[in-house]
Order: sequence, then structure tokens, then C-alpha cells
Amino acid sequence: MQELPGVGKRYDLAFGQGGQRLSVVVRRDGTRDLYAFAERGDDEPAAVIELTEEQARILAAVLSATFFDD
Amino acid sequence: MQELPGVGKRYDLAFGQGGQRLSVVVRRDGTRDLYAFAERGDDEPAAVIELTEEQARILAAVLSATFFDD
Repeated sequence: MQELPGVGKRYDLAFGQGGQRLSVVVRRDGTRDLYAFAERGDDEPAAVIELTEEQARILAAVLSATFFDD
Repeated sequence: MQELPGVGKRYDLAFGQGGQRLSVVVRRDGTRDLYAFAERGDDEPAAVIELTEEQARILAAVLSATFFDD
């Protein structure tokens, strides 16, 4: 985790054998910026998704919930 | 939400004024595939991030938690 003074905090999450990774910037105003890096060693994200606090909650729910009832 | 028979469920989340969007496929084995579309109307994702159930939980925690104590 990296402090971004005056902005918020940045979390770098390394996932995936293919070298894909995510960074999330949590801003002091509650918005989250999600940076998706498609390839190992990419300096520039392939996609940047700006999420409101509410949208971040929806995404978190989809990621964490168990949806199967059988 | 869309059923993917034998695979799992797919959630399409539209976010961002720039037309960025995310799709999450929740597989029956617990893994999640996160598809990040960089531009409105893109058919192909700019990045695909495969998450284990544990990684999905970590990402969900970063997205949903409040990290500021001041």
C-alpha cells in the first residue's frame, strides 16, 4: 500500500499467472479508480475504471458473494 | 445477470461516463474472471484478470473498506 498525499491510498494487487495485475486507488472522497494491467511489465493500464463508492460496493458484492444455491 | 450453463453466472456492470464497463464471471468453482472494457462499445475487453476466490475476496475488501481514520 502506498500513500498518495492529499489523494488517498493506492493498493497494488498482483494476480494471474499471465502477469495481469490490478491497482486500486481509494480516494479520500470515497471514489475508487481501478487500473487493470493486461500484461506483465505494462507501465500503462489497459483500462481505467472510475467507480463511485456505491459502484465499488456493487462490484465488491459481486466479487465476494456466493451466488449458487445448489 | 446472465446464466452461463455449466459455467456460472455473468454480471455486466456499466460504470463511468467514459463508457468503461466491467463484466464479472463467477464460476461454479469459485474463481472469478474480471473483464475490463476500456471504451464504450468495445467488444473485446482491454484486460482480463482471473481471480481465485481468495483474490476476489482481497479485491472486494479493498473496494469496500474504509481506510481513513482521520
